[in-house]
Amino acid sequence: MIRVAILGATGYTALELMKILLRHPEVEIAALTSRQEGNPHVSTVHPHLTGRLDITLENADPASIASRVDCVFCCLPHAASASTIMQLLNHDVKVIDFSADYRLRDRETYDRWYGGPHPDPDRLGSVVYGLPELFAEQISGSQLIANPGCYTSTSILGLAPLLVGGFVKPDSIIIDAKSGVSGAGRSPKLGTLFPECNESVSAYAVGQHRHQPEINQILSLACDLNVQVLFSPHLVPMDRGILCTMYAEPAQPAAAEDLLAAMRQYYEGKPFIRVVDHLPATKHVSGTNYCDMTVRVTGGRVIVLSCTDNLIKGASGVAVQNFNLMHGFDETTGF
Amino acid sequence: MIRVAILGATGYTALELMKILLRHPEVEIAALTSRQEGNPHVSTVHPHLTGRLDITLENADPASIASRVDCVFCCLPHAASASTIMQLLNHDVKVIDFSADYRLRDRETYDRWYGGPHPDPDRLGSVVYGLPELFAEQISGSQLIANPGCYTSTSILGLAPLLVGGFVKPDSIIIDAKSGVSGAGRSPKLGTLFPECNESVSAYAVGQHRHQPEINQILSLACDLNVQVLFSPHLVPMDRGILCTMYAEPAQPAAAEDLLAAMRQYYEGKPFIRVVDHLPATKHVSGTNYCDMTVRVTGGRVIVLSCTDNLIKGASGVAVQNFNLMHGFDETTGF
Amino acid sequence: MIRVAILGATGYTALELMKILLRHPEVEIAALTSRQEGNPHVSTVHPHLTGRLDITLENADPASIASRVDCVFCCLPHAASASTIMQLLNHDVKVIDFSADYRLRDRETYDRWYGGPHPDPDRLGSVVYGLPELFAEQISGSQLIANPGCYTSTSILGLAPLLVGGFVKPDSIIIDAKSGVSGAGRSPKLGTLFPECNESVSAYAVGQHRHQPEINQILSLACDLNVQVLFSPHLVPMDRGILCTMYAEPAQPAAAEDLLAAMRQYYEGKPFIRVVDHLPATKHVSGTNYCDMTVRVTGGRVIVLSCTDNLIKGASGVAVQNFNLMHGFDETTGF
Amino acid sequence: MIRVAILGATGYTALELMKILLRHPEVEIAALTSRQEGNPHVSTVHPHLTGRLDITLENADPASIASRVDCVFCCLPHAASASTIMQLLNHDVKVIDFSADYRLRDRETYDRWYGGPHPDPDRLGSVVYGLPELFAEQISGSQLIANPGCYTSTSILGLAPLLVGGFVKPDSIIIDAKSGVSGAGRSPKLGTLFPECNESVSAYAVGQHRHQPEINQILSLACDLNVQVLFSPHLVPMDRGILCTMYAEPAQPAAAEDLLAAMRQYYEGKPFIRVVDHLPATKHVSGTNYCDMTVRVTGGRVIVLSCTDNLIKGASGVAVQNFNLMHGFDETTGF
Repeated sequence: MIRVAILGATGYTALELMKILLRHPEVEIAALTSRQEGNPHVSTVHPHLTGRLDITLENADPASIASRVDCVFCCLPHAASASTIMQLLNHDVKVIDFSADYRLRDRETYDRWYGGPHPDPDRLGSVVYGLPELFAEQISGSQLIANPGCYTSTSILGLAPLLVGGFVKPDSIIIDAKSGVSGAGRSPKLGTLFPECNESVSAYAVGQHRHQPEINQILSLACDLNVQVLFSPHLVPMDRGILCTMYAEPAQPAAAEDLLAAMRQYYEGKPFIRVVDHLPATKHVSGTNYCDMTVRVTGGRVIVLSCTDNLIKGASGVAVQNFNLMHGFDETTGF
Repeated sequence: MIRVAILGATGYTALELMKILLRHPEVEIAALTSRQEGNPHVSTVHPHLTGRLDITLENADPASIASRVDCVFCCLPHAASASTIMQLLNHDVKVIDFSADYRLRDRETYDRWYGGPHPDPDRLGSVVYGLPELFAEQISGSQLIANPGCYTSTSILGLAPLLVGGFVKPDSIIIDAKSGVSGAGRSPKLGTLFPECNESVSAYAVGQHRHQPEINQILSLACDLNVQVLFSPHLVPMDRGILCTMYAEPAQPAAAEDLLAAMRQYYEGKPFIRVVDHLPATKHVSGTNYCDMTVRVTGGRVIVLSCTDNLIKGASGVAVQNFNLMHGFDETTGF
Repeated sequence: MIRVAILGATGYTALELMKILLRHPEVEIAALTSRQEGNPHVSTVHPHLTGRLDITLENADPASIASRVDCVFCCLPHAASASTIMQLLNHDVKVIDFSADYRLRDRETYDRWYGGPHPDPDRLGSVVYGLPELFAEQISGSQLIANPGCYTSTSILGLAPLLVGGFVKPDSIIIDAKSGVSGAGRSPKLGTLFPECNESVSAYAVGQHRHQPEINQILSLACDLNVQVLFSPHLVPMDRGILCTMYAEPAQPAAAEDLLAAMRQYYEGKPFIRVVDHLPATKHVSGTNYCDMTVRVTGGRVIVLSCTDNLIKGASGVAVQNFNLMHGFDETTGF
Repeated sequence: MIRVAILGATGYTALELMKILLRHPEVEIAALTSRQEGNPHVSTVHPHLTGRLDITLENADPASIASRVDCVFCCLPHAASASTIMQLLNHDVKVIDFSADYRLRDRETYDRWYGGPHPDPDRLGSVVYGLPELFAEQISGSQLIANPGCYTSTSILGLAPLLVGGFVKPDSIIIDAKSGVSGAGRSPKLGTLFPECNESVSAYAVGQHRHQPEINQILSLACDLNVQVLFSPHLVPMDRGILCTMYAEPAQPAAAEDLLAAMRQYYEGKPFIRVVDHLPATKHVSGTNYCDMTVRVTGGRVIVLSCTDNLIKGASGVAVQNFNLMHGFDETTGF
């Protein structure tokens, strides 16, 4: 039985994580933390879990947590996350970091996009990026995993097979992404109030979103190419789900069937990737750890469509996949 | 041309009010206020109004406002509203108060439900309640009007004809109300974040909502009865709309047709009341100043269904009706 | 391994049923039927199941199905359901009927509410109603179970403890129910088009809904009382979830704490009932087999609030509970 | 007073059209048609209009309609529309056609995209396309106007200024469009049922949508260029609103400010175009005849964002603009 802690357990990703871990036969949820005063019971913070988990949220320090658990899921904000993880790693504890702190490969990019300085710059570049479909082997042996961003993994999973196969030009890619509102987190903000985003769709941070450099770095690394995408996110009035519609110039003449075949071959044996013939909808993957994808060729362009549940395959589900790989369990355990 | 000011112009009711006033042939919007710093342009706060209204929000004091306008729509929070209005009334300016400050008839009830003390208790009991279908005559001659609550007017409008007609017992009424989320205002709160209230319905403040004593007092006054209702509000995942499903015991045997006829007679000549045969949906009144209502008799009970757009007939639309009556315009001007 | 069939597998309840059964360690989904031509693959009808279930929908007759499986989940429309089940029961096969055909206790009531005549009237009155929290013992030994309606079970579960305990008057109950749109099924109809019911709430079939006699009969049976409720359903713009707000007159003076205690005692050891202190929201039970409930005493009335996921605890989840009891598995297997 | 008829008055665009026309000081709605039996009252079909319009829907022939009105808004399906309009034009009546029948310039394209043959091919190429911001002069003198598609006008309005100004390459344009569900019409279909499209976003008809050739032909005509776009529509869970995110390669180096200035100059004096600095949301234009647009330059691409209310500026609002121009009224009359 692996004892785990979740740091920063009040948000939506933490809730989804607990829902998955409660089904996991090898996990005991041993500690939850938050900065909320009064050590609230988890069912007060997440009524969904009433009667399913009997534990309070505590404001514990990293050493205390590390002494009690085998693995930590860290759902803290960036910068705070690395500061905490630096301390955790001094103990014999595995860590899966949901923040962006260890995703980027170099300090300069981090500092520019996240208003640095990075609390733990020396570790950058050596931390494994937790996208199991691309980096399963490195994940297995790691103590620390950088859990991917939701937009990032949805984009990368759709694009990697075609970039690796040489089918599309690495500097031609436009990612038009649509996300449900849970991706914006659980802190009260004007922009995510129901009457603000219901019955509305809008773009935000066009070409300025922090997942853009992450996509570029990881795709470049995974495909051994210099990938430069234009990333354009949109807010859609639904709880959860991400759809990435991705436009690329073909690098060689190819029919959609060839590209679909390349996708299927690339992901052969990957249990959570579903290459489909139809145009996927986020509803088809809602509540699951699947990434559904397909590809079209029309108007002189290759169009990849890829979708996930942003809270599961885009966050907590992939974290449990990583957890399974790090601990030698079958990748699908708990799902 | 009547020059008007809106105090507290950042919220949803203020936006709807401006949209109606911009169509009103006799109104000039002369001043807007808010506590926001930097005097933002109204189109920054409400992009919906871009190009339609060229004015900034200022943090002006009541005397300054009163010197520049003929009528003030006061959308301030309770207590703050009465404090401001006390000053405004020293000038030759009409006031329509959106807050609850002058709706209740006595100080004790106000203090208990609103955590008093009331800033201006002496005026209570003499301020006219701005429900034009019931109090048009008194509204016409008033300097200050207490604009009704959204739940309150939707409930009262449905019940008044049957209470006045002696058809239902005044102590038997249960009001099960369902409201869209805009009724909760535009301040960021956890409970009205999109991912909290989307895909969910819940009750709140059952028997404890501040509109319960307001309904009791105004219905008792209007019908010359001692009305005691049980009010039970619910939050529904939509922007706007209120549906009140109201259950009462019959005071005498009567068929639904008789009750419908009584409703129609009671509201004869009232331009914004639509007594319908079908079961009304909030969508039928969305964006309008109508109140749609019907009645059923089944299972030994009288069931009244009444619905409004909470931001219009429930707030800003009825305010403009009151404005029209106070200034001698036709009630429907601007709609 | 129990081989099961699902008859009428194209709808929402069938999809949820398959999602639960795919997790069930003792079940093999052996056959699916529909009247659709061309034997479509289940993933064509339900893209959500792509890669999870490899089976086609066939237009098979009952005898063929009965020869291949041990248990049938029948999701056919009423009347068609009983006609099919009459044939199935001639074989050694267990049946869980999702339709209303065997829920009512007598032929006359069925014929009146469902436009009879009932295809199999002799069996009425002896078929066990599949609400495990009330009838677990009878369910265990049955070949045929009438799976409850979604409104019905949500209402009965909330009311039964207070009726049995003598806390509320059995002829005083008003049920104001709010449901998501999936309850209306998957057949294209004007009333459930997105632009019709989005951004709207409305009542329908007030006092005329077929679940009203079902609630009356089952509550009367379970509590040994003559229960007569007024049932008033509403359509709410969300996919799933039912909230019943239920008003009753107290039969004796009692505080909310006493009623909560009675609820908790009544459901002691029942794994899917959560008696809570807070006002429950449908989101708290979404995607689960839980029924959350609480009670308030205010304004001289007892108010019970009860909520479920209409597709799970209200349909497919309770069906699997029944399946478990019928086959000697732990009630929670598969959840 | 201009007497108008609306043919095919049961849908969403017809409802919005009536709501606008009811405010129009120079219009009398003299006839409505539908194929529904029994001549239903308009308030039965559209409860929103209860008490506002007293007229029944009739199944009248074109000659009868033409004898009673001055102008016809034709909301019939394609092909049926042209067949009817051919007859109407024999009378002294103006026609605004909401269908696609007269939008494309040539018979061959129509036949290919709409499964021809066109009922009235000789008129193609000479019918004026009713986008007032581009073709006001021709519209003024026309008897027949082809009212634009919703995606089409939203796209064209955003792109035209930059194409005419030579800022972007006409063969490089990708249009990623997001639409609310009302755009799919009011006929019951599985794909637009609430539980199908709520909580989901998906692409459809990528590169295969009928508005793609329409955009190409009208933009090419308006800008005197050979424009070839890739059009990729998406369904978003909201009632109304279209957002087009449009990606183009720059034809010359230019900053966003220059492009914004070009947009503003192009649309100077156009009352329904709002060139904004912020990223527009569909909610900002909901219920209005505005088209909000802006432009960004990032990642080596020009990105134009344009949004409308698909039922108003995308259909019925622009139709009334056209009506105003055809009859010599100010373009903004009725809004």
